[in-house]
Amino acid sequence: MLDTINLGQKLSKAEFSRLITPLELKLGELQRAVRERQIPVIVVFEGWGAAGKGTMINRLILTLDPRGYMVHTVGDPNEEERLRPFLWRFWQRLPQRGRMAIFDRSWYRRVLIERVDQQVRKSEWKNGYNEIKSFERELTDDGAVIIKLFLHISKKEQKKRFEHLERDHATAWRVTRADWRQNRHYADYLEVIEEMFARTDTDVAPWTVVECHDRRFATVKVLQRVIDALEARLAVSPPPSEKATPARGRRKVPAQRIGTSILDQTDLSLSLTRKQYEGALKTCQHRIGELQHLAYLHRIPVVVVYSGWDAAGKGGNIRRLVQGMDPRGYQVIPIAAPNDIEKAYHYLWRFWTKMPKAGHVAIFDRSWYGRVMVERVEHFCREEEWRRAYQEINELEEQLVNFGAVLVKFWVHIDKQEQLRRFKARQADPHKSWKITAEDWRNRKKWNVYKEAVDEMLQRTSTTYAPWTIVESNCKLYARIKALKQVISAIEHRLPKDA
Amino acid sequence: MLDTINLGQKLSKAEFSRLITPLELKLGELQRAVRERQIPVIVVFEGWGAAGKGTMINRLILTLDPRGYMVHTVGDPNEEERLRPFLWRFWQRLPQRGRMAIFDRSWYRRVLIERVDQQVRKSEWKNGYNEIKSFERELTDDGAVIIKLFLHISKKEQKKRFEHLERDHATAWRVTRADWRQNRHYADYLEVIEEMFARTDTDVAPWTVVECHDRRFATVKVLQRVIDALEARLAVSPPPSEKATPARGRRKVPAQRIGTSILDQTDLSLSLTRKQYEGALKTCQHRIGELQHLAYLHRIPVVVVYSGWDAAGKGGNIRRLVQGMDPRGYQVIPIAAPNDIEKAYHYLWRFWTKMPKAGHVAIFDRSWYGRVMVERVEHFCREEEWRRAYQEINELEEQLVNFGAVLVKFWVHIDKQEQLRRFKARQADPHKSWKITAEDWRNRKKWNVYKEAVDEMLQRTSTTYAPWTIVESNCKLYARIKALKQVISAIEHRLPKDA
Repeated sequence: MLDTINLGQKLSKAEFSRLITPLELKLGELQRAVRERQIPVIVVFEGWGAAGKGTMINRLILTLDPRGYMVHTVGDPNEEERLRPFLWRFWQRLPQRGRMAIFDRSWYRRVLIERVDQQVRKSEWKNGYNEIKSFERELTDDGAVIIKLFLHISKKEQKKRFEHLERDHATAWRVTRADWRQNRHYADYLEVIEEMFARTDTDVAPWTVVECHDRRFATVKVLQRVIDALEARLAVSPPPSEKATPARGRRKVPAQRIGTSILDQTDLSLSLTRKQYEGALKTCQHRIGELQHLAYLHRIPVVVVYSGWDAAGKGGNIRRLVQGMDPRGYQVIPIAAPNDIEKAYHYLWRFWTKMPKAGHVAIFDRSWYGRVMVERVEHFCREEEWRRAYQEINELEEQLVNFGAVLVKFWVHIDKQEQLRRFKARQADPHKSWKITAEDWRNRKKWNVYKEAVDEMLQRTSTTYAPWTIVESNCKLYARIKALKQVISAIEHRLPKDA
Repeated sequence: MLDTINLGQKLSKAEFSRLITPLELKLGELQRAVRERQIPVIVVFEGWGAAGKGTMINRLILTLDPRGYMVHTVGDPNEEERLRPFLWRFWQRLPQRGRMAIFDRSWYRRVLIERVDQQVRKSEWKNGYNEIKSFERELTDDGAVIIKLFLHISKKEQKKRFEHLERDHATAWRVTRADWRQNRHYADYLEVIEEMFARTDTDVAPWTVVECHDRRFATVKVLQRVIDALEARLAVSPPPSEKATPARGRRKVPAQRIGTSILDQTDLSLSLTRKQYEGALKTCQHRIGELQHLAYLHRIPVVVVYSGWDAAGKGGNIRRLVQGMDPRGYQVIPIAAPNDIEKAYHYLWRFWTKMPKAGHVAIFDRSWYGRVMVERVEHFCREEEWRRAYQEINELEEQLVNFGAVLVKFWVHIDKQEQLRRFKARQADPHKSWKITAEDWRNRKKWNVYKEAVDEMLQRTSTTYAPWTIVESNCKLYARIKALKQVISAIEHRLPKDA
């Protein structure tokens, strides 16, 4: 890609003056249109050292309303960030709908700097390509525009610029040893960059090479590229009405009959006596405490996901799981309907940003599976959105497991009769009646529609790296011990043999 | 305080069983009441090593609905946090209204561990007392409950517990050298703790010492203390109607005539010719670029606050200020009305969490002064709230300056005729007409009410450490150069003499 580029392109001062003002006005207009249409915009600046990233970014943002953008400078990950999956820090920095995030270096560090400087293992940067592609596809599927700019200069030009900077006391500090190393090994870097283009120049997020020998030419090209991308996106946006609120009376989702129901095959008669339970509980809680500590020592993140019917006993189950744990190392994360801020992002955003750091335990009480259950059934999202979610969820979980996480997913299961019995018992108990609302009764009426969604979910998201565990919960005691044992064995399995 | 404590108190198993269930039920009830009333709750656990903080916290949270609380373990500040004022990381972790934050160690690290281990200078931990007191007062003024628990054991008991932990392979790792150091120097620590009590045991946020030799006794006392505090707070809460939306037809704010108007004394005829301007601009922008770099090297945070009339030219002024800067080191932070999440916190929360790290520049386009201008004039907050804000703002700014920040505050000033001229010019220009809304015209009608608020603000928040600069802006060219020069001289003044 780079060797076919003509780096000699230039603009005269006069041409530049003629071109620049209309571009700036246009950009301002487009920024307002993008805000109106609630489109998130991501601009990535990558490129050679001294190619002029800082200047280009300043040039771009000075045309923009500061209420609408944010510049993120991406350096080496800090302590905190190193304890998370590598994309975590970028999820944190994504723009809300209608806003623009400008990245000075980006997730491409993974396959450029971190690769070349051998900060990560080969398997890690190789994996990086896939994770980046999923990441960008998920964002654009969700309506985002991604503009990726590579600022290009030749080896000779780079050398000239480094020397020029070094001659002036005020700018000499900018040229580092890493910069000179890049210049000496320009050809090797070139190969790495070409590979990056080959692997990540996609339809949804293509690369643009910007010839930077002439600053005026580069400036115009950058603004022009951003303008083109925004105009293209604005042209295809669905009418805001559709985007904002999925219609109520929309076409019925066709019944999904994929093989036999998994739920129908569970044995809900499984049970424990109080005595069996108490003995097992003590042993398991002691063991889980030990394992929490070992996971901490080995920096293994643990993610436990609870899904299940209303009144299936998720809360009580979680309580028994954490009773033996140190509260400083675990967190129960209850998931309700997304708030206004969360709605302004990709639906996975709020989960990514809550992932535990290496060595910690996160227990999700409801989770990203809401997308393919309640959001599907209640039409809170469009059909294409929840259909797409199966793949997105599998990718999310694969990334977690690649990062080294233990991932346990529970479907806490009861039958319809048992639910009714529990609803009634709750209503009769003054300390528990607050737990039961009209919504619970409404959901209960949709038992069969939910069941269908759950069955499809269990099938589509049971993967080798993240299988589901059905927890038979007509007997709560049995359910609690089963869940505890499952978490114990998952952590034990993941620990080094001699731990 | 501690030497009068009887550490021998105990509860039998039977007494404990009798007491504990009603306490747990009560706590669950209160948590729901607190959520209903939108009261933020903060529980701080401090205490001796091995006093049982982990156990007590787990005991407390297991009675709570996980949707309503969050546990924060406070260790040494990380890289990122060390580059911010010391309270910054706690502002980040405050609970929303209706929620509970439980701190395992807290801001008191500053005057305990960080003091004893000499991680900070004497002036820093001494200042810490004042900053902590302001912080807690601001939160309780805003409706929060702060419960501070100190878990107490004797030197002998601590030694016994350390030895017990060390005997078991599985728990030996928990006892560190720092723990043993604490035990050896128990008496010195005791003095430090007593000083902390003396300085921070306030009406609004009193300390409770929990005798922890007997775990059952301690558990009951912790739960009882939390219950008492929540009940006390619920008893005094103003009716939600008053809290939620300040009434529209409330009593008029009495006219504030404090001395002469500062605004009336400005000389708005000050101006520059285009030629003078262009020369000065070039020099200033070059210099500001150099200074940004020097401030970065010396890890000096720079905060510039822009306030001013609509159409006074804040945007254009800011643009000239940053044109010569590296975009990787500055951020323009536009402040609009608070969003839903921001409204769920103390009004200063959104500003604290946006403060720049040491070495970076933050430019606020509007700021915390909204509280005493638009929020005052439009009755978005109650009178006692904006009156209290003068002190809160002065404290905020003092903390910033104590932290080493350069703080520059601009009131960008024009007269009423000039504003009208600009409004009309904007409406006539198709590229600028979007800038002018019905609200601007409405605000303009209230010029005199705003002027009164601005005059009072300028007087009450002009401090030696953070004075206001009036930028006369009938001539925009003059205003831009004045602002640039002011920022330049403020940074130069703050740099070490040999820089």
